[in-house]
Amino acid sequence: MEFTAAQIAEWIEGEIIGDANTSVSGFGKIEEAGEGALTFLANEKYKAYLKDSKASVIIISENLAIPDNDARTFIRVKDAYAAMTRLLDLYKSLTQQKSGIEQPSSIHESAELGEDIYVGAFAYIGKNVKIGDNCKIYPHVFIDDNAVIGDNTVLYSGVKIYDNCVVGKNCIIHSGAIIGSDGFGFQPDQNGVFHKVQQVGNVVIGNQVEIGACCTIDRATMGSTTIEDGVKLDNQIQVAHNVTVGKNTVIAAQAGIAGSTKIGQNNMIGGQVGVAGHIKLGDFVHVQAQSGVNGNIADHSKLYGSPAMDASDFRKSYVYFRKLPELMNKLNQLDKKFNQERKNG
Amino acid sequence: MEFTAAQIAEWIEGEIIGDANTSVSGFGKIEEAGEGALTFLANEKYKAYLKDSKASVIIISENLAIPDNDARTFIRVKDAYAAMTRLLDLYKSLTQQKSGIEQPSSIHESAELGEDIYVGAFAYIGKNVKIGDNCKIYPHVFIDDNAVIGDNTVLYSGVKIYDNCVVGKNCIIHSGAIIGSDGFGFQPDQNGVFHKVQQVGNVVIGNQVEIGACCTIDRATMGSTTIEDGVKLDNQIQVAHNVTVGKNTVIAAQAGIAGSTKIGQNNMIGGQVGVAGHIKLGDFVHVQAQSGVNGNIADHSKLYGSPAMDASDFRKSYVYFRKLPELMNKLNQLDKKFNQERKNG
Amino acid sequence: MEFTAAQIAEWIEGEIIGDANTSVSGFGKIEEAGEGALTFLANEKYKAYLKDSKASVIIISENLAIPDNDARTFIRVKDAYAAMTRLLDLYKSLTQQKSGIEQPSSIHESAELGEDIYVGAFAYIGKNVKIGDNCKIYPHVFIDDNAVIGDNTVLYSGVKIYDNCVVGKNCIIHSGAIIGSDGFGFQPDQNGVFHKVQQVGNVVIGNQVEIGACCTIDRATMGSTTIEDGVKLDNQIQVAHNVTVGKNTVIAAQAGIAGSTKIGQNNMIGGQVGVAGHIKLGDFVHVQAQSGVNGNIADHSKLYGSPAMDASDFRKSYVYFRKLPELMNKLNQLDKKFNQERKNG
Repeated sequence: MEFTAAQIAEWIEGEIIGDANTSVSGFGKIEEAGEGALTFLANEKYKAYLKDSKASVIIISENLAIPDNDARTFIRVKDAYAAMTRLLDLYKSLTQQKSGIEQPSSIHESAELGEDIYVGAFAYIGKNVKIGDNCKIYPHVFIDDNAVIGDNTVLYSGVKIYDNCVVGKNCIIHSGAIIGSDGFGFQPDQNGVFHKVQQVGNVVIGNQVEIGACCTIDRATMGSTTIEDGVKLDNQIQVAHNVTVGKNTVIAAQAGIAGSTKIGQNNMIGGQVGVAGHIKLGDFVHVQAQSGVNGNIADHSKLYGSPAMDASDFRKSYVYFRKLPELMNKLNQLDKKFNQERKNG
Repeated sequence: MEFTAAQIAEWIEGEIIGDANTSVSGFGKIEEAGEGALTFLANEKYKAYLKDSKASVIIISENLAIPDNDARTFIRVKDAYAAMTRLLDLYKSLTQQKSGIEQPSSIHESAELGEDIYVGAFAYIGKNVKIGDNCKIYPHVFIDDNAVIGDNTVLYSGVKIYDNCVVGKNCIIHSGAIIGSDGFGFQPDQNGVFHKVQQVGNVVIGNQVEIGACCTIDRATMGSTTIEDGVKLDNQIQVAHNVTVGKNTVIAAQAGIAGSTKIGQNNMIGGQVGVAGHIKLGDFVHVQAQSGVNGNIADHSKLYGSPAMDASDFRKSYVYFRKLPELMNKLNQLDKKFNQERKNG
Repeated sequence: MEFTAAQIAEWIEGEIIGDANTSVSGFGKIEEAGEGALTFLANEKYKAYLKDSKASVIIISENLAIPDNDARTFIRVKDAYAAMTRLLDLYKSLTQQKSGIEQPSSIHESAELGEDIYVGAFAYIGKNVKIGDNCKIYPHVFIDDNAVIGDNTVLYSGVKIYDNCVVGKNCIIHSGAIIGSDGFGFQPDQNGVFHKVQQVGNVVIGNQVEIGACCTIDRATMGSTTIEDGVKLDNQIQVAHNVTVGKNTVIAAQAGIAGSTKIGQNNMIGGQVGVAGHIKLGDFVHVQAQSGVNGNIADHSKLYGSPAMDASDFRKSYVYFRKLPELMNKLNQLDKKFNQERKNG
């Protein structure tokens, strides 16, 4: 798709400095953008890249200076970052135009489909499934019986929603994510053989939730595994049965939350973090990447380490961990000197 | 689905105390169950929740007291936990009734299908594949040429079984699991370029095995990657080529086992654990979450840490790790005092 | 498939010692191979297994001795490992013969398909997609609009390629891998609510790249996430938006690379490693399994630990970590002795 500076300026209500007919066909960061790309400059920090940027059109905040006699086209706005964000939203809505029901797809006659939805070829929608308005169900999606999908939700190719699970409105679930697989529940007998405990609960996902590629969210043993409104999960995250992830919590890739744990609101959990089962994390907790949380955690805690401890304490201890050979050496020398003294004394 | 207390009592051979016509439409844990739910109380530990539980029907072990004049309906049995488990099995068998061959599906004419199997729409079954009786092959499953699936096995939507792999009887494999992808084998040349070593072995999975969502089990270079009877794998576990996982071993989510390693029987391996390649773990080994095992391990060992060591030694060392700043401080003070003494003396 | 020793000897230009009519139907490692299997012996280290190997045909390097009066058939070649590798390549090309366009599949009329390609049933190929010659697109693959796939590339069942992504020539992508899902980019507002930053870049994968099962490679915010030529990724690896992985770098399973990080050439990154965002690793860097890299790294560095440090320093520190209780004890005793002396003195 190609757009002229004039079109863009109109959309973001900006003022053109340069040639209004300059056209662009893609986006780029100011330090990487090539010819024919649109970029933006919103922050003093990136000003140094402005001189050499090959971008053809540059959206710039009004507090930043435009070089004199520049061949490139500028669009001056109040806040270049906000303008760019709006533009990207517009671009996405223009380019993600899939619509209609493609064939062959398998939609059970009892399913209720909202208006203006897209169902890709080879998608499977089971009995009594309810899908809201404006949803996009990509190819190879599987939605089993009695599941509910809220308005404006996008399920990318290959998402699997097991029976009776509920996904809210305005959610995005990326390819390969699995919602509602069985929780990991087994009862050992006296011979060490494990017997399955049926998992008859479900998964309930709130509104404005984004779930990354290849995440797995297990259904509850009984009741629900719950992902509250506004939660953002990166890729390959594991959420076990009966977990609750609180509102607006953000979790980075490859983290795992063990069974029945309650994560509070507005947590920020780093990549590859493990959280043990049956514990409770408060609100506004920060956990550094690769940490292992294995106890209840108060609001506003900052954690690091495996097992996790206060982040600043962990950093201090780790400084001395690095120095352990030196520390040991010092101790040995002191011991020697002391014994020497004693002999001499 | 709705059931009355009378129906439930009959199935589990219990005695009704209260209104036999009370009906329930779901299950709940005693502390969470809402009106219209069935719950159970088997353990003194949870007795405190009994008073306020909103469950409509409560299965209760005969050694626990039923409150006087209670409006709720109770079903008295010898062992409420066992009764509940039986009920959940029954419920699952009633609700998971998929059957028949849905269209369009792609089943090669040379494939041998057992009796009473379910094949979902968009499932793909290749040449010479053998599928046992009562199997459930959900939509979007791919079973490549010459693979074998034993009786009563369930492959959920999107499971991929590469060619020549073998899955036993009574197995459950969850969505997104990949069985038989190539092992990670490359030979570097003198220029640091890696050349693929073809992986011509397979994966052999025993009976009563459960494999979680998005697990990946690579085929052997030659021979077989082997998952023995009764193994239970949680979600997102990686099993590399030529690994053996011994009977009744249980592995938690996001753990990874590197190539050619042999895991013994009845191990319990925690979440996010890494096990190095070409080593051997004995039987009844326990590994704490996030540990990294990198050497041969004796039977009944308990491990923790990365790299892993004896679990109780790790815990002791970690106590002092937390105190390292304090320890360093003490050492410095002692050194100072000593030098002071020397000067003075 | 069955082959005789005579056929095999012809393919690898070897000399038969024994019965040229002996036939084999599979491959095995020398220590595991059963009757009817072909094996090889290239390395003195494995010589001990020769005597008892049940293999029917053994390819053997010319510098190794063949037992006298042996009932088995040997094929003598200069380099048995190289001969075996060639044979495995041949075997793979003979057995992986899928061809043609299976039905039903969904191929947009605007897509350009190369010659001699395989498209499996239920594969989905979107608008303006370009697929090179000799590609194999397995069942349930999804290739969205404007994506490009180079010659001779294999996409196994269930691979998902989002729109506008580019895959090079001679690549292999295993089942469940997701290429081009949205990068994890959100902007928080003053209420702690996160707003999506549209991800309008793509993923560009070079030639001779292998990507394991259930890997996830996110598209760039703007510009490209780049996997250079010859990179080999094991299973379940996460590559975030705007990352570059340099030529011939090899990454083991379950590692994760956070956003905007640049990995140099010929790195070897262990399993479950985490690499922080916005950093730069040089060339020929080795990172031990489970390490956490959180700063810029010079060429040829060897790293270990979380957070990562020089590998040999980490090993030394860890030796003392194990001895921390002992070290603490020694310090306490010294302190006691010192105080005792002082009192006495």
